[in-house]
Amino acid sequence: MSNKIKRIGVMTSGGDSPGMNAAIRAVARSCAYYNIQCVGFYRGFQGMIEGDYVEMDARSVRNIISRGGTILKSARSKEFHTSEGRQKAADNLKKAEVDAMILIGGDGTFRGGQIFSKEHNIPVIGVPGTIDNDIYGTNYTIGYDTALNTVVDAIDKIRDTASSHNRLFFVEVMGRDAGFIALNSGVGAGAEEILIPEEDLGLDRLLASLERSRKSGKTSSIVVVSEGDKIGKNVFELAEYVTKNLPDYDSKVTVLGHIQRGGSPSCFDRVLASRLCVKAVELLLDGKKDLMVGFVNNQIESCTLESALKEKHAINLDLLRISDILST
Amino acid sequence: MSNKIKRIGVMTSGGDSPGMNAAIRAVARSCAYYNIQCVGFYRGFQGMIEGDYVEMDARSVRNIISRGGTILKSARSKEFHTSEGRQKAADNLKKAEVDAMILIGGDGTFRGGQIFSKEHNIPVIGVPGTIDNDIYGTNYTIGYDTALNTVVDAIDKIRDTASSHNRLFFVEVMGRDAGFIALNSGVGAGAEEILIPEEDLGLDRLLASLERSRKSGKTSSIVVVSEGDKIGKNVFELAEYVTKNLPDYDSKVTVLGHIQRGGSPSCFDRVLASRLCVKAVELLLDGKKDLMVGFVNNQIESCTLESALKEKHAINLDLLRISDILST
Amino acid sequence: MSNKIKRIGVMTSGGDSPGMNAAIRAVARSCAYYNIQCVGFYRGFQGMIEGDYVEMDARSVRNIISRGGTILKSARSKEFHTSEGRQKAADNLKKAEVDAMILIGGDGTFRGGQIFSKEHNIPVIGVPGTIDNDIYGTNYTIGYDTALNTVVDAIDKIRDTASSHNRLFFVEVMGRDAGFIALNSGVGAGAEEILIPEEDLGLDRLLASLERSRKSGKTSSIVVVSEGDKIGKNVFELAEYVTKNLPDYDSKVTVLGHIQRGGSPSCFDRVLASRLCVKAVELLLDGKKDLMVGFVNNQIESCTLESALKEKHAINLDLLRISDILST
Amino acid sequence: MSNKIKRIGVMTSGGDSPGMNAAIRAVARSCAYYNIQCVGFYRGFQGMIEGDYVEMDARSVRNIISRGGTILKSARSKEFHTSEGRQKAADNLKKAEVDAMILIGGDGTFRGGQIFSKEHNIPVIGVPGTIDNDIYGTNYTIGYDTALNTVVDAIDKIRDTASSHNRLFFVEVMGRDAGFIALNSGVGAGAEEILIPEEDLGLDRLLASLERSRKSGKTSSIVVVSEGDKIGKNVFELAEYVTKNLPDYDSKVTVLGHIQRGGSPSCFDRVLASRLCVKAVELLLDGKKDLMVGFVNNQIESCTLESALKEKHAINLDLLRISDILST
Repeated sequence: MSNKIKRIGVMTSGGDSPGMNAAIRAVARSCAYYNIQCVGFYRGFQGMIEGDYVEMDARSVRNIISRGGTILKSARSKEFHTSEGRQKAADNLKKAEVDAMILIGGDGTFRGGQIFSKEHNIPVIGVPGTIDNDIYGTNYTIGYDTALNTVVDAIDKIRDTASSHNRLFFVEVMGRDAGFIALNSGVGAGAEEILIPEEDLGLDRLLASLERSRKSGKTSSIVVVSEGDKIGKNVFELAEYVTKNLPDYDSKVTVLGHIQRGGSPSCFDRVLASRLCVKAVELLLDGKKDLMVGFVNNQIESCTLESALKEKHAINLDLLRISDILST
Repeated sequence: MSNKIKRIGVMTSGGDSPGMNAAIRAVARSCAYYNIQCVGFYRGFQGMIEGDYVEMDARSVRNIISRGGTILKSARSKEFHTSEGRQKAADNLKKAEVDAMILIGGDGTFRGGQIFSKEHNIPVIGVPGTIDNDIYGTNYTIGYDTALNTVVDAIDKIRDTASSHNRLFFVEVMGRDAGFIALNSGVGAGAEEILIPEEDLGLDRLLASLERSRKSGKTSSIVVVSEGDKIGKNVFELAEYVTKNLPDYDSKVTVLGHIQRGGSPSCFDRVLASRLCVKAVELLLDGKKDLMVGFVNNQIESCTLESALKEKHAINLDLLRISDILST
Repeated sequence: MSNKIKRIGVMTSGGDSPGMNAAIRAVARSCAYYNIQCVGFYRGFQGMIEGDYVEMDARSVRNIISRGGTILKSARSKEFHTSEGRQKAADNLKKAEVDAMILIGGDGTFRGGQIFSKEHNIPVIGVPGTIDNDIYGTNYTIGYDTALNTVVDAIDKIRDTASSHNRLFFVEVMGRDAGFIALNSGVGAGAEEILIPEEDLGLDRLLASLERSRKSGKTSSIVVVSEGDKIGKNVFELAEYVTKNLPDYDSKVTVLGHIQRGGSPSCFDRVLASRLCVKAVELLLDGKKDLMVGFVNNQIESCTLESALKEKHAINLDLLRISDILST
Repeated sequence: MSNKIKRIGVMTSGGDSPGMNAAIRAVARSCAYYNIQCVGFYRGFQGMIEGDYVEMDARSVRNIISRGGTILKSARSKEFHTSEGRQKAADNLKKAEVDAMILIGGDGTFRGGQIFSKEHNIPVIGVPGTIDNDIYGTNYTIGYDTALNTVVDAIDKIRDTASSHNRLFFVEVMGRDAGFIALNSGVGAGAEEILIPEEDLGLDRLLASLERSRKSGKTSSIVVVSEGDKIGKNVFELAEYVTKNLPDYDSKVTVLGHIQRGGSPSCFDRVLASRLCVKAVELLLDGKKDLMVGFVNNQIESCTLESALKEKHAINLDLLRISDILST
């Protein structure tokens, strides 16, 4: 192993996701195990710019594996988009004698990290942490599995109440550009309809399908709507449109919002975060840089940050077919 | 015990609430225990009008104590507001040889039951089942405790994500005319502000209080808003108004909707439902009628349906003071 | 209000219970609200003896309302049973300028507090925090409601798997001297049999009842056993005895153990803890001492520590009758 | 597609697992979608032997996707081990005009199915449903993910209470021959020690490691023990042995038992069950037989029942290394 790396920085950036604390813990504990110092920066790039950090040892991360959120807090930093901002961050890392950074976040985080690494020659490893699952180079991002369980649990509760006839429930879930949450939670919850940004099936098809459901004997239907669905209406407008066209229905709207970003992480997300971050530390100690770690085909792998940013994590549209079959 | 009662009908009506199944189970099992027949009517008064019912024995309610919703389904019946509708219901009860009815629901259910009992001389016992807790004659209604846990669990998740600065989260909860859910879940979740229909504290006070919270070092605040709050804005308008006046804040909205009516009932709601319904059956067997059973001062009691309908279950406004102290 | 009280100490003692953190938060925030200093002692009486404490302000208790356990840790202190130990504690309180103590715990905690208050003339208020609910002077202790939900949730999962014929599940729950948990969770989970310390129904009755259940068409049965049940066998011996006598049954044992002491507190426990502790602080400021706060008949009340210790919180044995009716 | 298949039977067998209902639903709905008849057999092979079945359409499986257990019940059948038993089953399938069977279960189920298929020339597809994850040919079995969450949730609660010094918690989890549950839940819960059947690390190592943990500043430790761990002691004996050798510790035991087999399935298990069972139906319609469907490298695949039975699903022992690093 390289003996150049003595202090590794870690931060969380972008929208927070369940399992980020498990990831921070794994970085801190791996550093302790390999006898190097872990340094945690607060509020993502902003803490690097402001030199706002804390030295972490194995005990600093005690009992956080089960907690939602991130003890290092998260933020989006406009200043890091400027070369002055990044210069400040590099100066602060130098002052703090940090040799390399582990960046836990999504696309935006990795983009910032890639530029920063090139400009200032500081090794960087990305760890995919976002509930949206929209990162190339990993089958699962940290937090996605938990978010799915949160959504499914919410829809289960709504389904309990669907004991009146002719009820339509619209549930808006996160996913401005990617339908992973809507599609998988929709199949998991047995939703009658799923609207995602990747596929515009049209309002006419939705109305026809809901009518068909009713005729097949369903007393009520649940429609899962991704924030970014293609139909171009927000969920309240959509509900209004549908009940105007299907006047027999009574429609109810739930907007889950930030509930989806919180909660104690699932076992899957904790194990994923743990394995990815042990690997991230080991890659740095091994002299590697500018990579993203990922879980691919049931194994921990890595790819270049460049490919992670260039390629798109394609959604499995076959699940729409599965949904059609199962909401028969 | 009266030997006139041989068959007892049971139904659930109005918005459904967790614990209604535990209540139905308790009616069916009590009937079995006392060797009388239980008859379940579907969709509340509507099933009585249509003669849509099922004979239930101890095994019919197997494994339902843990389930949200109601196996008898629930509905609101316009036809029961007419004397013709009620006549049909009475005829059907006669045909089904049902001697008395147990009505599980809220205000509207009891009002219908009271008129029906007077017109057709059929003994009726009301059981308070609604998440809103707005029934006089009981400290707790069936489903309220579970709804509180559901709301608090949701706000906990939102709180996890409140790791960025200057975030305002608005969470709309049920309660068109009563703030029980908002007030108690707000205290339980440690919300910074709670808006309820019973008390109009004004928008200026809200803005001032949020500013004060920020100055005291809070990085973000959570506002629980009852559907029926007095400020006269829906939760999206309210969020917009606040961020217009406090431009440093970024605001996020969650609308919990029907999630609050579902879910597996808490132990409290199951025991409450069980005790109230054993009592309801025993009151009927004892020749009593036109009463509502309730949980008052830690005991199972009963009051007249008339008083339950005339009086108002006053909210404990001292909790607003508690909330002010604790969100310091 | 008395101007003598300038610093209030708080500690948690005995077995920990969900909601203790909500209680600590309420003490700290109430102190902040009334402009007095809150001082938290670690590990109950032991921290008082060792002078191990921390000054707490409103921000010290940020985000702990939702967490199980106690940030002040808990312990049982043998040294506090000696007058030397108590003298050290009194000396430390004096040094720390603590004018009064709020003690969150159970019987043992209050007994220690009462002696200490008499010996050293330091005002003390007890707050009932234990999952066992075995404290006189309150209908509910902090943590009891959450423990019930934890047990019921566990039994629900066991019930799911009870799809094979002739299965007997024995579930051991906490309660060495009191059957509150077993009795209420047993009714809430729909257990076929409930064994509690307060009532020895005998093994013969148990065998007969299980046989009757099977003949009535039940495919499997769940027996909730309090740690301290009167039958005088541990749960494994009991399971063995029953299957020796009812050889057609296959028996499975679950020992819940300390799971029951943890978990995020229910809304009920959080609101209860909050209200009790605001009251505790206000009583001290009002010059009161040697009282226990409680929730009696739906109101916050107080009684003397003496009566809390002398009297016994009687279990509602009518619930055994309810259980018999409902497990028909 | 083959037009020979007109009626497909489905059953669940062996220990039940969360997601079996989602699997049954997917079989029934896929059959409805492809216009063939689904026939559900009760209690696994036993229902086939006794001709105990029900015809299922799309509505028969309404609202079961979220439920633990199996609506078709599960059992282990000794009679099916005999050729007479299997002959009866074949006769009953013929009578019921069932052309092919989908068997949801584990190793034992598939072994029975393979023999049956050969003897009676009835096409069979296996679907891996067991919480143990010990099936070759799939990365995940239905129910495993949910069981992990159940265990982790339980250990989180125990961790909450670990606020006293020198506590040792032993948690026994399922896995007589395979340590998947112990290993993954142990990493997910941050357990200090994990004992699994695949690896005998010895009691001395355990004692040494616990001592090391204590010296590193840990106030308490959690040991996850697989039922089938190699140390050859049951969990109570193990706890006794350890506290005899480390007398400063106070040890507590939890035996999770059948809790792990129940509960509402996670989104992961529901989607997995749905995808596997759509595939199972489509394979049969496509003329395939004697295969097991599996989730391999993030895709739905199939392998021969023969290979599924011959090969062993190797546990990832690298996770033990991860656990050592992270429990530093």
